[in-house]
Amino acid sequence: MKKFVYSFGGGKAEGRGDMKEILGGKGAGLAEMSNLGVPVPAGFTISTEMCEVYYKNNKNYPPELDKAVREALGNGENIMGAKFGDPSNPLLVSVRSGARVSMPGMMDTVLNLGLNDQTVEGLIKKTNNERFGWDSYRRFVQMYGDVVLDMKPESKDEHDPFEVIIDEAKKSRGVKSDSELTAADFKDLTYKFKKLIKDKKGIEFPTDPWQQLWGAINAVFGSWMNQRAITYRKLNAIPEEWGTAVTVQAMVFGNMGNDCATGVAFTRDPSTGERAFYGEYLINAQGEDVVAGIRTPQQVTIVGSKKWASSNNIDEAARSKQYPSLEETMPKAYQELVSIYQKLEKHYKDMQDIEFTIQREKLWMLQTRSGKRTAAAAVRIAVEMVGEELIKKEEAIMRVKPTDLDQLLHPVFDPAAKKKVVAKGLPASPGAATGRVVFHADDAEAASARGEKVVLVRIETSPEDIGGMNVSQGILTSRGGMTSHAAVVARGMGKCCVAGCGELAIDYHKRIINVRGETIKENDWISLDGSTGDVILGQVPTVNPELSGNFGILMKWADEIRQIDIRTNGDTPKDATVARKFGAQGIGLCRTEHMFFEGERIKHMREMILAENTEDRVKALDKLLKHQTEDFYGIFKAMAGYPVTIRTIDPPLHEFVPNEDENQAIMAKEMNVSIDKVKAKVQSLHELNPMLGHRGCRLGITYPEITEMQARAIFEAACRLTKEGVEVYPEVMVPLVGTIEELKIEKATIYRVAEETIKKYGVTLKYLIGTMIEIPRAAIVADQIASEAQFFSFGTNDLTQMTFGYSRDDAGKFLPVYLEKKVLKCDPFQSIDQVGVGQLMEWAMDRGRKTRPELKVGICGEHGGEPESIAFCHRIGLDYVSCSPYRVPIARLAAAQAALKYREVREERLKKQAHKPVKAKPSEN
Amino acid sequence: MKKFVYSFGGGKAEGRGDMKEILGGKGAGLAEMSNLGVPVPAGFTISTEMCEVYYKNNKNYPPELDKAVREALGNGENIMGAKFGDPSNPLLVSVRSGARVSMPGMMDTVLNLGLNDQTVEGLIKKTNNERFGWDSYRRFVQMYGDVVLDMKPESKDEHDPFEVIIDEAKKSRGVKSDSELTAADFKDLTYKFKKLIKDKKGIEFPTDPWQQLWGAINAVFGSWMNQRAITYRKLNAIPEEWGTAVTVQAMVFGNMGNDCATGVAFTRDPSTGERAFYGEYLINAQGEDVVAGIRTPQQVTIVGSKKWASSNNIDEAARSKQYPSLEETMPKAYQELVSIYQKLEKHYKDMQDIEFTIQREKLWMLQTRSGKRTAAAAVRIAVEMVGEELIKKEEAIMRVKPTDLDQLLHPVFDPAAKKKVVAKGLPASPGAATGRVVFHADDAEAASARGEKVVLVRIETSPEDIGGMNVSQGILTSRGGMTSHAAVVARGMGKCCVAGCGELAIDYHKRIINVRGETIKENDWISLDGSTGDVILGQVPTVNPELSGNFGILMKWADEIRQIDIRTNGDTPKDATVARKFGAQGIGLCRTEHMFFEGERIKHMREMILAENTEDRVKALDKLLKHQTEDFYGIFKAMAGYPVTIRTIDPPLHEFVPNEDENQAIMAKEMNVSIDKVKAKVQSLHELNPMLGHRGCRLGITYPEITEMQARAIFEAACRLTKEGVEVYPEVMVPLVGTIEELKIEKATIYRVAEETIKKYGVTLKYLIGTMIEIPRAAIVADQIASEAQFFSFGTNDLTQMTFGYSRDDAGKFLPVYLEKKVLKCDPFQSIDQVGVGQLMEWAMDRGRKTRPELKVGICGEHGGEPESIAFCHRIGLDYVSCSPYRVPIARLAAAQAALKYREVREERLKKQAHKPVKAKPSEN
Repeated sequence: MKKFVYSFGGGKAEGRGDMKEILGGKGAGLAEMSNLGVPVPAGFTISTEMCEVYYKNNKNYPPELDKAVREALGNGENIMGAKFGDPSNPLLVSVRSGARVSMPGMMDTVLNLGLNDQTVEGLIKKTNNERFGWDSYRRFVQMYGDVVLDMKPESKDEHDPFEVIIDEAKKSRGVKSDSELTAADFKDLTYKFKKLIKDKKGIEFPTDPWQQLWGAINAVFGSWMNQRAITYRKLNAIPEEWGTAVTVQAMVFGNMGNDCATGVAFTRDPSTGERAFYGEYLINAQGEDVVAGIRTPQQVTIVGSKKWASSNNIDEAARSKQYPSLEETMPKAYQELVSIYQKLEKHYKDMQDIEFTIQREKLWMLQTRSGKRTAAAAVRIAVEMVGEELIKKEEAIMRVKPTDLDQLLHPVFDPAAKKKVVAKGLPASPGAATGRVVFHADDAEAASARGEKVVLVRIETSPEDIGGMNVSQGILTSRGGMTSHAAVVARGMGKCCVAGCGELAIDYHKRIINVRGETIKENDWISLDGSTGDVILGQVPTVNPELSGNFGILMKWADEIRQIDIRTNGDTPKDATVARKFGAQGIGLCRTEHMFFEGERIKHMREMILAENTEDRVKALDKLLKHQTEDFYGIFKAMAGYPVTIRTIDPPLHEFVPNEDENQAIMAKEMNVSIDKVKAKVQSLHELNPMLGHRGCRLGITYPEITEMQARAIFEAACRLTKEGVEVYPEVMVPLVGTIEELKIEKATIYRVAEETIKKYGVTLKYLIGTMIEIPRAAIVADQIASEAQFFSFGTNDLTQMTFGYSRDDAGKFLPVYLEKKVLKCDPFQSIDQVGVGQLMEWAMDRGRKTRPELKVGICGEHGGEPESIAFCHRIGLDYVSCSPYRVPIARLAAAQAALKYREVREERLKKQAHKPVKAKPSEN
Repeated sequence: MKKFVYSFGGGKAEGRGDMKEILGGKGAGLAEMSNLGVPVPAGFTISTEMCEVYYKNNKNYPPELDKAVREALGNGENIMGAKFGDPSNPLLVSVRSGARVSMPGMMDTVLNLGLNDQTVEGLIKKTNNERFGWDSYRRFVQMYGDVVLDMKPESKDEHDPFEVIIDEAKKSRGVKSDSELTAADFKDLTYKFKKLIKDKKGIEFPTDPWQQLWGAINAVFGSWMNQRAITYRKLNAIPEEWGTAVTVQAMVFGNMGNDCATGVAFTRDPSTGERAFYGEYLINAQGEDVVAGIRTPQQVTIVGSKKWASSNNIDEAARSKQYPSLEETMPKAYQELVSIYQKLEKHYKDMQDIEFTIQREKLWMLQTRSGKRTAAAAVRIAVEMVGEELIKKEEAIMRVKPTDLDQLLHPVFDPAAKKKVVAKGLPASPGAATGRVVFHADDAEAASARGEKVVLVRIETSPEDIGGMNVSQGILTSRGGMTSHAAVVARGMGKCCVAGCGELAIDYHKRIINVRGETIKENDWISLDGSTGDVILGQVPTVNPELSGNFGILMKWADEIRQIDIRTNGDTPKDATVARKFGAQGIGLCRTEHMFFEGERIKHMREMILAENTEDRVKALDKLLKHQTEDFYGIFKAMAGYPVTIRTIDPPLHEFVPNEDENQAIMAKEMNVSIDKVKAKVQSLHELNPMLGHRGCRLGITYPEITEMQARAIFEAACRLTKEGVEVYPEVMVPLVGTIEELKIEKATIYRVAEETIKKYGVTLKYLIGTMIEIPRAAIVADQIASEAQFFSFGTNDLTQMTFGYSRDDAGKFLPVYLEKKVLKCDPFQSIDQVGVGQLMEWAMDRGRKTRPELKVGICGEHGGEPESIAFCHRIGLDYVSCSPYRVPIARLAAAQAALKYREVREERLKKQAHKPVKAKPSEN
């Protein structure tokens, strides 16, 4: 007969830790600990395969099971030195579910099984504790009644029927808490519970422990198909056929008296990662008491206890009397615990979160699992474990969740500070900010000039606000999502941002915000937590986390392992400098249009827009040329030795002109033209769907003089630096290309200007001309486009917008519903839609490299900093990803993880593409 | 040696009509006529292959060419009975270019070659006409000087140097026209021309005819590479390697005296297609005189002459004296011409456009080619030629250009009427309209109710204007392109529309239009020509063309041949009725939203939009349900026996609420809510890019009650009709699907309502549930979507918008530049972009049918009525195309042509797709 029952305990087990599929997570873990010789209460696991048989067999078991269970239980009895159902020395057991993956709280559990009117007396005698005995018994009846006998409330409005009886008992006894009830009370309750069951279900409560046991096993297998579990499986894509295992295990008690205790511990400090045993325990208590907060838990180690006392202003005398450590109270059990935790950590090669119970001075381990930890701890533990030769570098890389690094790169609020959260928006850009409220970008600039710290609060931001955003501590908007203008720009700046906080009623006119009955006025202090979306009244002190040495080591390892480059999106020398510090290997996207908003430039830009002929346009552009050249000079210099991808102008021209009457009047005055002319121009630039309008290379093709000016600025700057001995690799990127002809026309202009300028300076300069792939058609005809493009860069923001037909600005109206109804598994603007958008990317890659095997391909959309998307880019053969400066470390780690997981997938792909990468390639026009 | 020179003349030729590639169009035509025994002036053609040799050989000829040319010229001399360079009986020749395809006016020609001071005397003696002789000579010198000796004006501002001398001569002789100059004058001019050449070029004008001949041949070959020709080739995608041939042919003259004549004729009436010889001629004239309009040309036949005279009020006496027919003046030549035209028509099996010259009573044919004709003539000729057994039905089908049929389906302006064109817009929807100007849709409705004819003039139209558009004679807009709202809706209605007439300054406030200095006021009469885009002042009478019997016959043949169905886009029973008359086999797109604008309905719609919870929304929808059910009842009934595809609501809700303050106030009053509430709702519905916003199935998923109401209306109507014995095939189409989950959710609602309703009525009803493929992602994941969709319908308007990233509404800002700069070969909103959008369509088809081989696929975008797009749809395996009612006949013909051209391509594709078409298929949910 097939083996369905696996025993464990007494230093050995029939199962192993890697048998989760048939023993479930819990059963496998207990087997593994048993095999390690760790003291685990004995028991056995009925495998998940039996679950399948049970359901296939119309909820019946094969006859052989009974024998196997009896044998296994007998084995447990021998180990524990007690007998199931023995009135003088009863063995009590727990019956628990355990699926391949954890489904917390979804299935059923029965504790204290084996008690009846006879065995309870044995328990009392054995423990010499009448109250404990009757309390255990009434708990069992209550739990069994609920789980096995289906004693549920009749309707949702009713209370649990057992709790109702308990409440009545407390009332009649005139006490408030369970702890005030006596042994007699619990005995009385037990009989009342049984009577209730009889009244409701018409059956006697089972007194035969074996009948109890099979009832509980049936109930646990049955709970695999309860509604909660079905829903949970659907939501988490867990196959129904996996089934659950059932583990029957001897009960141990930490609440039998003062020689008992229970506790939880971490093998290292989960907050800092320090290699120090850390835990809490309580004497004469049950497991849940430690975390329930009714009693103050004590520290496990002396060191920990002293530290705890000092930070709570408790002197050593009081500490050692009132709150002694386990090391002091039960030194023998403590020593055993230490050797066990060390064994477990060494075995699992990771920091463990363990649960233990000491029953009559005997230590029992109930659980061990990888412990949750902060990002800082994760990094430290991973790096130190390599030093301890517990794990390899590759394993260390896999141990840290890339996005968690974000916590290490921004200032955070002092965890000790009090905070009054007044609203919650989207955590759009991490960090912590405190400042006075301003409502307009120029107010922010003025205040900043006076040395004040401000938080810019807007309904939504626009490119005109860039200057103000840059000088603010943080940005708060009431409209827009994770990819709104405010969010994207803030992330690019590494600045804290809470976006789309719809609760805020912002009144620009009165200069106030109304929210949850509070009124926040201009100049009031507020604080933002960009990692949680919290909006907080008043000032909150912040701390600047240091990038520890371990962080640097982990990054170095990641760099050794990863196969793709990491660049940054950055528009200023400052961005470039920050990003280099974070390890960026070049700029993947330099948006030139942000440069047009600063100071004088917006005037020249508007002059250009108002120009009625090419001549006037060229005149205005000439003024911009000087500024752009300086901009590029600064960026190239800051990124010396690395490639810099500069995108020619992209947004529609209407973004550069004001919409409000007032500002139009100012513009008219500045430009020395009539307001009607300004209005007419603004009107003529208006578009119904600007996202699909006159922008990107469409501007360059209708006004070639713009492309010409930008090319001149790029190559003037590059040539000057080359003359000065600085290494420069410009990569000029044409946006929004959909046809080969567009790129041909734009490239011709750029190439001509480049060659003219290089000749003028008499220098040698390596440069590339390429294109964004952000229009679906460009991906489709990538084979054609690659005949002109020396590189591709996926603009996955726009590519996602057009492939889905979603406007990022407007999708807020239906995207939340789509995510809620699971129409979409995740927001495609956050993680690449691999099935749709990704398919286009794969086509573009394969077709592009068919035409041009050396084609360099990157990504510069928001997705370039998202780990799942980075893994996808790695697999399909991209040369690099580019992301905002503060995401660079995340991308480095994510790329290393991708390399560890998908090295072969990538290499096969590159072989298929016959890719011949060229790092910095001379122009081959 | 390879043959480079091909003789023709004297009833035979070395070349043939099918040798266009090496003889050019002209040379091949002359060879073909010679072979037919038609009298053609003798000559020879130097092949295009020599052109290649010439350029490859650094502009030198192989030595053998001279001999071959001399032999061929000798042959010509023998046939013509004259000798090249013989002073007593000189043969004169023309030297002309001739490429594989016509490149009119791009390359050079030299006439009268062979004249010098000696041969001119021979010509004079031979013709006994001194003036003719010297005029011919000076023309030769002038032409040769220009073409061969490069006597161009020095700059663009200067006149032709020869014309300057002629002007001086006329001035000094005190005359105004060339015809007043005498033989002596021409002789004098000849010498002056030669002197000018000597002065400017330092060479004597060549007197040796052979030197002249080689000079001219060089010049013609050379002109293949002139700038004009290069540009023309580039614009028309003619390969440079094709080269030109050179044809040298004996000159014949229609202007040697009154026994000479020249003329042009059509073998059938090019205007009506009647089988009647039709032509014009002039006695003693050159070819160009007939078309120049200086002298009134005479008719070739007596019948034609009498008809002409009567319509010009000329009596028979005057006619026969002043304007006799060729049949009367030169009966012998006329008879020969008749037998030749009959021979040519029979040979070419098409109506011919011929040119002839009669020199000294001897008839010479100079050219024959297929004649241009009106659409009506094309249909009549094609059908009648099948009757005459000249051609087969298949050839008749290929003879008519589908889009030309448009002329036959709409009223047109009386061609005889005077028209004052005051502006020109885009010919957005064909037809002719005359009416009084109104500026608002409700004014149009009011005037129409009073029985007045109006033309609705708007800056642009919106869905709110539908009612007014429907009652107007025509629609004129100053903004928007061929696919603007006005254009699309007007074409759908078969109503005349001129769109995007940017010249018009429309002032709604003053109710006037200013254009080209004219002011058109409200109530003034204007007329629109929707086929030319002309805007005309005042009233112009229109004629309603009849759909002749021949038209019906041609359509019947087309239906026999075509392989795909033709459906119509139609939203009303009237549309359905019109379309059935035009041969539609069902409705491919019924837009339900237009129905929401009529009368009471817009109120209920707005109630629904203002509703703040599902309950109120359902209440408002219940009121709409009644109306929608009636709408569908009418449409199903009008299309009885054919499938009707109904699209659930598609446009964003903001299209149903007013934007102007005034109308918002009205709405608030009607809805009995505050104007602030209306404003807030309008504001909340505002989107930055509505095209990519909350519309299509996104509405149905956020408000499932809308889908439910629409499904109920559809199936209530269908079941009622089924009970009444009417055959109904509803196909419910979900728009804007991008993910399988969207369709699943929408389909579940529709399916449930369908089954409920069918059960309620106790009927049997075949219906399908399918989706638009209009989002790029839907095409990419079509294999998934086909698992839910029973049919696909390509929404190529949106698919084009998103694949290109072009907003139709805004593309006017760059699309004209793109077409001009040839970034795009044609407007992708008019003809499917086969390389990009078409690629997505192919993927969707192939993947969709892989999942579901019986998948029905159609197209309902504007492209469904465009012949190139129809051919594409035919090739890739679509089951049907759907277009506006007035395009149905065009689509039927285009589909037949596609079947004739691409039958195998389609069948191979369908085999690859394993397609199993099912005409009307029961639900298989």
